[in-house]
Amino acid sequence: MYIQNSWYAAGMSHEIGSKPVARTILEQPVVLYRMQSGTVAALEDRCCHRGLPLQHGVVTGELLECGYHGLAFDGSGRCVRIPGQEKIPAKAVIRSYPVVEQDDLIWIWMGDPALADAAKIIQYPWHRDPAWAYKGKCTTINAHYQLLYDNLMDLSHVGYVHKNTIGGEPEAHSNAQMKTTRTADGVHVIRWLLDSTPPPTYSAMFDFKGRVDRWIEIEFSPGAVRLYTGAKDAGAGAYEGNRDGGLGLRTLHAITPSTPDSTYYFWSIARNVKLDNQDIHEKVFRQIEATFHEDKLILESQHQRLKQRPDPLVDIAADAGAVQARRVIAERIKEEAVVRSPSIR
Amino acid sequence: MYIQNSWYAAGMSHEIGSKPVARTILEQPVVLYRMQSGTVAALEDRCCHRGLPLQHGVVTGELLECGYHGLAFDGSGRCVRIPGQEKIPAKAVIRSYPVVEQDDLIWIWMGDPALADAAKIIQYPWHRDPAWAYKGKCTTINAHYQLLYDNLMDLSHVGYVHKNTIGGEPEAHSNAQMKTTRTADGVHVIRWLLDSTPPPTYSAMFDFKGRVDRWIEIEFSPGAVRLYTGAKDAGAGAYEGNRDGGLGLRTLHAITPSTPDSTYYFWSIARNVKLDNQDIHEKVFRQIEATFHEDKLILESQHQRLKQRPDPLVDIAADAGAVQARRVIAERIKEEAVVRSPSIR
Amino acid sequence: MYIQNSWYAAGMSHEIGSKPVARTILEQPVVLYRMQSGTVAALEDRCCHRGLPLQHGVVTGELLECGYHGLAFDGSGRCVRIPGQEKIPAKAVIRSYPVVEQDDLIWIWMGDPALADAAKIIQYPWHRDPAWAYKGKCTTINAHYQLLYDNLMDLSHVGYVHKNTIGGEPEAHSNAQMKTTRTADGVHVIRWLLDSTPPPTYSAMFDFKGRVDRWIEIEFSPGAVRLYTGAKDAGAGAYEGNRDGGLGLRTLHAITPSTPDSTYYFWSIARNVKLDNQDIHEKVFRQIEATFHEDKLILESQHQRLKQRPDPLVDIAADAGAVQARRVIAERIKEEAVVRSPSIR
Repeated sequence: MYIQNSWYAAGMSHEIGSKPVARTILEQPVVLYRMQSGTVAALEDRCCHRGLPLQHGVVTGELLECGYHGLAFDGSGRCVRIPGQEKIPAKAVIRSYPVVEQDDLIWIWMGDPALADAAKIIQYPWHRDPAWAYKGKCTTINAHYQLLYDNLMDLSHVGYVHKNTIGGEPEAHSNAQMKTTRTADGVHVIRWLLDSTPPPTYSAMFDFKGRVDRWIEIEFSPGAVRLYTGAKDAGAGAYEGNRDGGLGLRTLHAITPSTPDSTYYFWSIARNVKLDNQDIHEKVFRQIEATFHEDKLILESQHQRLKQRPDPLVDIAADAGAVQARRVIAERIKEEAVVRSPSIR
Repeated sequence: MYIQNSWYAAGMSHEIGSKPVARTILEQPVVLYRMQSGTVAALEDRCCHRGLPLQHGVVTGELLECGYHGLAFDGSGRCVRIPGQEKIPAKAVIRSYPVVEQDDLIWIWMGDPALADAAKIIQYPWHRDPAWAYKGKCTTINAHYQLLYDNLMDLSHVGYVHKNTIGGEPEAHSNAQMKTTRTADGVHVIRWLLDSTPPPTYSAMFDFKGRVDRWIEIEFSPGAVRLYTGAKDAGAGAYEGNRDGGLGLRTLHAITPSTPDSTYYFWSIARNVKLDNQDIHEKVFRQIEATFHEDKLILESQHQRLKQRPDPLVDIAADAGAVQARRVIAERIKEEAVVRSPSIR
Repeated sequence: MYIQNSWYAAGMSHEIGSKPVARTILEQPVVLYRMQSGTVAALEDRCCHRGLPLQHGVVTGELLECGYHGLAFDGSGRCVRIPGQEKIPAKAVIRSYPVVEQDDLIWIWMGDPALADAAKIIQYPWHRDPAWAYKGKCTTINAHYQLLYDNLMDLSHVGYVHKNTIGGEPEAHSNAQMKTTRTADGVHVIRWLLDSTPPPTYSAMFDFKGRVDRWIEIEFSPGAVRLYTGAKDAGAGAYEGNRDGGLGLRTLHAITPSTPDSTYYFWSIARNVKLDNQDIHEKVFRQIEATFHEDKLILESQHQRLKQRPDPLVDIAADAGAVQARRVIAERIKEEAVVRSPSIR
């Protein structure tokens, strides 16, 4: 069960060139490619002639040519060339999907095309703001997408899953002040770890005097979680509202359901310090990447167990944000089911 | 759904010796082996005692001895020895299959043994004619057998799938003259690529003056596609009927359904030129083998997509031969269903 | 279908330390670990909070702490700590299993805990008797547990499956005297191979004069097969009752169903000769291990075939012991079904 009428990340700009890229999104096979004009298109990854995935084809100008018998399709999915014959049957057309490229991300709309409104795509200015440097990649987690949201909305896991990397003191996370709020399209959580030890990753990027006040803001809307995190010397006013002169990080977590058992995870890390230090750049990226591997292990093991044993679970206090996020998704899916129901129409 | 009453290739002669070989044919587990007398036998690959596949057994004389407890079976499937006891139960018998070795191929009959008529096996004299040299092998394609026939019957794919090997000019293939005819037991297609560039494989075998007239004859009958191809200098009379003095090739494509998702593909390439040149022999074989890998990639990807999305497809003009071949197979399967139906008997 | 109310081997003592070990027993995910006090505990391998397998957790003192959000459980499965909150919900509890450590083996009870009687665990003194030296390990066979019992109860397979290792003369095995008896909780089989050639493994351990009288005693009770085997110079009185001065071996085969398609096989080999010879120790262990690989190949191939083709099989004379063992298991499963049936209660 997925929200259909929503923008999902289908790729990062650097991934999609003239060589077709295959992705399965909401269980639908999609092929993404960049036409000669620079525009990215997304088509059903299945030629209408013999069913070959078009991922094996080649982009020629604005067309995608099938790798089996050479049928060529334009960006709208219409077949415009069949080798060896003049007439093109009206049925020779495949599905195309609305695509928008924004903030170095390729956003796709899998639902009713009439409802695709580019203005509803989340903003992620840190991919284009020159005051920030970022690096990102796409990874696949073999787990249900809901588990990825749970993971991100309850960061008390950081002290356990990531204790050797970004964890710091488990108690600091568990005892952090936490406030959860519903927003227009999602959920906002803020956690403060006051007077705590900065984790190794932080210290590598910034020269703190000693202990720090650390903040973690979680901005959830269906399709993505944006984390605004950072730290400043303890007592230096961050908690009161002035984060200037501290370390700031932005991590994007765009979550795109692939199948019931797998999810694309597009993530990036952006920082506002030492922008030109390429060493720090790579080092921070590798460190964050290591934490994703830690999460991947946990999420995939959890997914397998819950598939095998879907018995009820016990919520704890730290789940407040995750529970809200699940509610937002459930409501959106329910709304769509009502709209689609023939008895209503 | 398979034609049951038909001969299928189960192996090539060089593959079957005294060490048992396991093959799953029309979803039935079969073990093939050569007895001391030289005759090839085919038994159900499952001992009647504890179910162990007999592929783990050893051939002793005319018997196949199970690798678990030593029960021994003759070529008719009858158990003739049980270690440690005198009496052999009447039920101790397994199924055997009619087998004929002809043209360096092992042909098996999976249907009603009473209908097995060796005279109906296709002839393939190029495996024994001293004027021809050949080499062949067995490969497995993880795709439904019907897709392999489609692939062979519509050679317009050669210009796309094999563009870097035997393809030549895609347009030459797409615009080739094509004639499709039903034969007694199958379909015959002939394509002429007049005044075209010879592909690299051809030039490696034969010294053409320049452009060539190239022919491709496709002879389909259930179980195999025989390709008679070749080329001669353009305008030198091949099209008018005289192919002498040109390059001739014979490629066998024996197609044996294994499971709904996999198919044995027994193939060989025979040529009538440079018979003693072992270098050319290996080189041509390797080049053709490379084209099979190209097809394998396409067929397996297509198969996966069609399993996932079996929605209707759109036929094009080039599909004439493939459509006819599908019809022949469907008719044969339907005939067998009628014969087997108890209400008719 | 499994006997539930029975002790099963879950591990060997050397395997279970403070690092949690995951095992699936009778299709139930279990995590085993040794507390600081030395006691081994077995819990459901699924945290009640978010379902993460506890195998990823850490043992701290007498507690097992979940690797996701740090919930801590005691050996009875009760959650005793939730980071970040004081109150622990009553529902925060997971299943624990009775465990007994005896004879260097960890025995688990998967059925009704009220019926768990440690006195019913089989004795295996050769793991603690100083007159014997042993070495063992856990291996997994991807086959139904019943096939493992069949394999052990009918040792006529030794002459075929193990002909290159411990087999000796196939005829000697097939023609061995055999006597099968029902015992209080299982089946006893004794086989005598009189005046036979000692197998290479035996000769490596003991200096026989020449031919030997060899005995194989098979003691089956649900959960384990104990083999008491050995040999003495032919005619030296072993058959008449005096095995002193011969080679004695004890092999344990504890059989624990994991899933319908896989089984844990805990085995060990103990001998009463050359106890201090570490070379012989390793050599004998490696030789026996090689025979397990021979069995594994056979059992897994057999399992696959029987899953695909579960048609009736034909019993032979050598199956007497195996047939009895199957009957014991079937009776026990039937008894439990009757007890559980609500109409009876």
